[in-house]
Amino acid sequence: MHISMSTACLPVCARMLTNLSHILAKAEQFVETKKIDPTALTTYRLAPDMFPFTRQVLISCDAVKNGVARLSGVEAPKFDDTETTFAQLQERIQKTLAYIATVPAAAIDGTEDKEITFPAGPGKTRTLKGQDYLTGWMLPNMYFHITTAYTILRHNGVEVGKIDYLLGAQG
Amino acid sequence: MHISMSTACLPVCARMLTNLSHILAKAEQFVETKKIDPTALTTYRLAPDMFPFTRQVLISCDAVKNGVARLSGVEAPKFDDTETTFAQLQERIQKTLAYIATVPAAAIDGTEDKEITFPAGPGKTRTLKGQDYLTGWMLPNMYFHITTAYTILRHNGVEVGKIDYLLGAQG
Repeated sequence: MHISMSTACLPVCARMLTNLSHILAKAEQFVETKKIDPTALTTYRLAPDMFPFTRQVLISCDAVKNGVARLSGVEAPKFDDTETTFAQLQERIQKTLAYIATVPAAAIDGTEDKEITFPAGPGKTRTLKGQDYLTGWMLPNMYFHITTAYTILRHNGVEVGKIDYLLGAQG
Repeated sequence: MHISMSTACLPVCARMLTNLSHILAKAEQFVETKKIDPTALTTYRLAPDMFPFTRQVLISCDAVKNGVARLSGVEAPKFDDTETTFAQLQERIQKTLAYIATVPAAAIDGTEDKEITFPAGPGKTRTLKGQDYLTGWMLPNMYFHITTAYTILRHNGVEVGKIDYLLGAQG
């Protein structure tokens, strides 16, 4: 097997969103067992001006969805960002996984030098070539928000470990 | 340019460690300006059984150093993990960057199917092929610890933003 834009992107994103779903399932189990108000976790922020847990999950999904759409040119579904519960967040992850499963590898292969213009902060855009966009923006951004979602749960006592992040249910 | 194992690895790791160094510089500036004991940050943990800040930085460096060594076969320097200050952590990052700068791209190119055996938790090893190791273990692990180091600082009021993580001093 040779590394290609599609193999550096699609299975990586699918695995990490699947692992995020696994981590969310552990959080759901935690609030049920402890009889905790789930919003104690879903609205939790690690700093007053950081995004809460729900938003970390939504951005993780959108980092993948928008990144795959920009590289492949395969139109992505629009979501309304109204999710508040663990069940709704799980559904959002599944919808994102379903979208990327429709994207053929061939639509991403060969996009190393494709010019990608994307929003980068309020009122700003940046343009990078496909490979730089994938390895220097899209994937670091996905990992950032998945790790932050994980850390919010971990900080609040949910019994997750790095192996859940790396391997999901296979851990 | 075509994506290759080396371009998916070396520049990505170099950029992220450089950005981590930039984030550390902001933390150093924060403790100087506020006249805070730096150990308030360097020993901080987001959960009692998570690693403190210093260790997050050391593991970020080792994720890169050991990963590059395993893929390339270029022997990596050994470090004693005695760093406690920001200056020492900066030096560790620089030594890691210096090591990976010595590794020729050709030593990593073509390692897609090379069998890599690596420690994965106490007394355990795993074996993955080179590409799976890079994209499914080494890089997610590096991003996990860099993001956690960032989040510890952010949680404690250091004025860093995602743009520092993504772009470093270019942000």
